[in-house]
Amino acid sequence: MAKGEEAAKQLPSVLVLRPPPMFKMFEKEFSEKFQFLKAWESPIPTDQFLAAEASSIEAMLTSGFGLVTPDILRHLPSVRIIVTSSVGVNHIDLQECRRRGIAVAAGGDVVSEDVADTAVALLIDVMRGISASDRYVRGGLWPIKGEYPLGSKLGGKRVGIVGLGNIGLEVAKRLEAFGCPISYNSRKNKPSISFPFYHNVCDLASNCDILVICCALTDQTHHMINKQVLAALGKEGVIINIARGSIIDEKELVRCLVQGEIAGAGLDVFENEPEVPREFFAMDNVVLSPHRAVNTEESSRAKYELILGNLEAFFSNKPLLSQVNIDE
Amino acid sequence: MAKGEEAAKQLPSVLVLRPPPMFKMFEKEFSEKFQFLKAWESPIPTDQFLAAEASSIEAMLTSGFGLVTPDILRHLPSVRIIVTSSVGVNHIDLQECRRRGIAVAAGGDVVSEDVADTAVALLIDVMRGISASDRYVRGGLWPIKGEYPLGSKLGGKRVGIVGLGNIGLEVAKRLEAFGCPISYNSRKNKPSISFPFYHNVCDLASNCDILVICCALTDQTHHMINKQVLAALGKEGVIINIARGSIIDEKELVRCLVQGEIAGAGLDVFENEPEVPREFFAMDNVVLSPHRAVNTEESSRAKYELILGNLEAFFSNKPLLSQVNIDE
Repeated sequence: MAKGEEAAKQLPSVLVLRPPPMFKMFEKEFSEKFQFLKAWESPIPTDQFLAAEASSIEAMLTSGFGLVTPDILRHLPSVRIIVTSSVGVNHIDLQECRRRGIAVAAGGDVVSEDVADTAVALLIDVMRGISASDRYVRGGLWPIKGEYPLGSKLGGKRVGIVGLGNIGLEVAKRLEAFGCPISYNSRKNKPSISFPFYHNVCDLASNCDILVICCALTDQTHHMINKQVLAALGKEGVIINIARGSIIDEKELVRCLVQGEIAGAGLDVFENEPEVPREFFAMDNVVLSPHRAVNTEESSRAKYELILGNLEAFFSNKPLLSQVNIDE
Repeated sequence: MAKGEEAAKQLPSVLVLRPPPMFKMFEKEFSEKFQFLKAWESPIPTDQFLAAEASSIEAMLTSGFGLVTPDILRHLPSVRIIVTSSVGVNHIDLQECRRRGIAVAAGGDVVSEDVADTAVALLIDVMRGISASDRYVRGGLWPIKGEYPLGSKLGGKRVGIVGLGNIGLEVAKRLEAFGCPISYNSRKNKPSISFPFYHNVCDLASNCDILVICCALTDQTHHMINKQVLAALGKEGVIINIARGSIIDEKELVRCLVQGEIAGAGLDVFENEPEVPREFFAMDNVVLSPHRAVNTEESSRAKYELILGNLEAFFSNKPLLSQVNIDE
């Protein structure tokens, strides 16, 4: 056995179910600290691979695209921690984790600013037609057809934030600087927050020009933005989603946009990614972003450091850096 | 003579050299207050039209696209006021106006917020690839080619504002909320402003990651952003221009972008509008906007009201609402 291999043998083992987007970028640095068991590279079916190779593994790393189901966990009796690079944990069966006493650590706050920046960019883009008028210029239409149609001013528009966690608060901070009055919906009223609170998302939509979806995807928020909420938002309303596609009833959103029942949408997430409803492709009042609100070089390094910190904390019996509360 | 015509005869006359973009939208409302002489609709050459029809006219309205040269003013010996819908007045020969005792009123502050919103949208777009990744999704590439490349985080990037007037200050207010340290260049240091001041735009560029051009186009600022300034901004630098195309040496900008000597650009203005250098069309690190940073429904109404207010003030011998200081 070569010396390097011997050293690697002594590193703590981590199962990688599905590599986070930044895994390759930091693999060398990661590999100085951990020995990785790469489930996604194995040619044999995942459950067989897990049963054969991972029965003694204690720590697992995954991305938001790597589903952690009870079936998978059944093959991993020794797992005590799941670290996900994503902010959301809707891909992990939290009930099963709770039952098995598995801790979950997620992306935490390190990407909140990047996500909020994307939300604001999508919003101004929809209202002012930035992407659409860029297409107009690139298509050579400016000299031929003249002025591009007017946009709509952002300042003064009432913004409703659905889910006022870290990301929602960063969105609010930015949009206040543009002169937008903010209100919000959340599971509970937050007494420390001065923005008006709406218990019901439909009431929020009725009292806003813009909805920005920033909440987690849960059983309760699945299709929460439905026909009624979109109708309450109304013909002049704009919706921005940087959370998860399934929080919006996407078929209903398509229908509303086709029929002009809302004014526009800026979407970083979709129900069946990477598939995007084709109806959107021809719409100039829609801006489409391929689920990358968090994807900057800076946030990739921050996520790497957080994953590393969580795994190191676990293996040295210290408190995790970004543990998700999975109590009922 | 019909009654309506008689009433129109009594309205003050205003020469419209070139109609502002919102003129048509508000023509009915305008026409209740003024009688317009429409130079741009006349089939005869402008100078002949002016000599024949406008020698007694006192007030003139134009847009940023209607050049006011000494030649034109020679035909208009009675003109005492020029109202332009634009914020910039680089299309008006101010020296000749001064010599002739003609007052100039411009677009003032009513559009500053919309312009600043566009500057921020162009900046986030360049850094995060919003328009480019929208093209990627619309082109059907997401399911085929997978993740779009990483962007660059806005927070923490040092922003240098060139020209800290109303628009520059609105840009600064917004970008502070994104966590960007601000510094600026201006004709003079502004003692009431706490941002660091650079007397020399090259020094500003050396100490910034991002330049946002917000100054007026004058003889002094023509091609102020030249090869040296772009080199000082450097390979990671981004430039945003919502002012006037000719403030940047556009050929040099094209060369820097082609050769990767700066990282990207967000441009609402160009040297030979509506012509845009074709090299930009294939660049994903450039966002192209057809000179419409001010073009919202809300700012169109605000501009209409300001033009109306300036003309009414002139005809009733009151102080103009947004007179441009044209003293030497």
